[in-house]
Amino acid sequence: MNTRRDFLKKMSGMGLGLLAAAGVGNSLSCSKPGPTVTLEKTTLVTVTAAPATAFVSFPWPYQKLDPLKAADKAYSNFARGRCMYAVFESIIGMLRDEYGAPYKSFPTAMMKYGAVGIADWGTVCGALNGAAAAISLFIDADPAEEIINELFYWHSLTALPDYKPSSTKFASIPASVAGSPLCHQSITGWSKLSGFTTNSQERVERCVRLSASVTRKAVELLNQKTDGIFKAAYKVPDGVTACLVCHGPGSVQGDVHTTSETNCLRCHEVLDPATHPAAK
Amino acid sequence: MNTRRDFLKKMSGMGLGLLAAAGVGNSLSCSKPGPTVTLEKTTLVTVTAAPATAFVSFPWPYQKLDPLKAADKAYSNFARGRCMYAVFESIIGMLRDEYGAPYKSFPTAMMKYGAVGIADWGTVCGALNGAAAAISLFIDADPAEEIINELFYWHSLTALPDYKPSSTKFASIPASVAGSPLCHQSITGWSKLSGFTTNSQERVERCVRLSASVTRKAVELLNQKTDGIFKAAYKVPDGVTACLVCHGPGSVQGDVHTTSETNCLRCHEVLDPATHPAAK
Repeated sequence: MNTRRDFLKKMSGMGLGLLAAAGVGNSLSCSKPGPTVTLEKTTLVTVTAAPATAFVSFPWPYQKLDPLKAADKAYSNFARGRCMYAVFESIIGMLRDEYGAPYKSFPTAMMKYGAVGIADWGTVCGALNGAAAAISLFIDADPAEEIINELFYWHSLTALPDYKPSSTKFASIPASVAGSPLCHQSITGWSKLSGFTTNSQERVERCVRLSASVTRKAVELLNQKTDGIFKAAYKVPDGVTACLVCHGPGSVQGDVHTTSETNCLRCHEVLDPATHPAAK
Repeated sequence: MNTRRDFLKKMSGMGLGLLAAAGVGNSLSCSKPGPTVTLEKTTLVTVTAAPATAFVSFPWPYQKLDPLKAADKAYSNFARGRCMYAVFESIIGMLRDEYGAPYKSFPTAMMKYGAVGIADWGTVCGALNGAAAAISLFIDADPAEEIINELFYWHSLTALPDYKPSSTKFASIPASVAGSPLCHQSITGWSKLSGFTTNSQERVERCVRLSASVTRKAVELLNQKTDGIFKAAYKVPDGVTACLVCHGPGSVQGDVHTTSETNCLRCHEVLDPATHPAAK
């Protein structure tokens, strides 16, 4: 981990540098310590500096975090806003606690929306949505997509959760391979494997731990990217590539826009032999 | 539309009031007009006030917008960051342009991550992800979920896009009913209906217009909520309720956590009569 001084030095080459160049630096001198104000319903923040770094240029600066501590944060944050919030708030919150601005200006509570695949629709796993949002705050466009892609493959092909809290009332929380980035498929698959219903306390604990697992992995990937040592471990599986030969962008059918997936047959379980040559 | 003065008056009862109570108000007097600085790669913002409202309490204040103007913004913003960014930036950007802080502190460019269902994975429609994020910035928890739920049903059951730009080079962009909030299903369904491949210019134009449609609807819903006249028009379809009798939370199977959906058979096309009683 680098020091706070290193980080502020790094910042001076980014947003603060821009502010100084723009003649806004004077406003910084107006800052002074103050009492606490409510940033969001669940968090009190001490005002120690004028929030001029709210104007930091995009993407925001990232400073390496301890992946295990971030996972622990996510485990405890889950109860205040569930999966998407837990992941996003844990990463941004650790930076906020350590460095203050610009992170303290981010209304992380907005990320509660991702729970149960967004408003109970079971679409994308909220932990992944939160991690993708955090990654995209620190890395722009295609490089961000590369990290998110790696995270999504890891999530979909790894037995999760692989995080265990230091103390727990649960004897065992089974792990399962989701084979998908979707909340519905991930939870239903786990429920069938474990035998626990989806509204059981065990299922909730599974999602709490999964949020911690995803946070840890996201921080590991961000740290690797920061150190310039990130290297993708996953690629599009051969089975998916085979489907995209006929269905992907630029192909004969050209009716599938998605290019990253673990297994098309996860949803397309039965191919009609009357209309699908490969199924004959 | 209310005036800027009305809005600032409203704000004084929220974040600015908190700041004043906390003794941070003095820092506001340090603000002064300044030159432009880079907020994000694509946007220049004039610094006209100290960004003290970055400490506005959550959720952030919403001020009614013109839905048609917001849709036009989304149509033009798409090219700079695609679907999720287009929707989110259009809503936040209109508030930023009109009111400045706290909206100018939000790094909207981070929302580029939602394109093609997040990093090409075809999960949740990026326009929906962006709209849900914006709604959740202004409305907390369950009330936000109610608005998002309405938006998702409208998106999934309405022939879209229903937005047409004032001028266009395209003779016709067909509309389709996605029957799903997922990017992959939405685009593939449209491609099959229209006959255009998913990497055609027509498909891109379809998603640009769909982003505008979703922005318009999201603003309409936010305005209705602001006026206290929001009323949900959609409910869980009978077909989905029938599935949840056995599979939903608290049921015999209890293996499905998702409770909002348009049609379970959209994915579960073939039910095995050997294992599924209803299919016998």
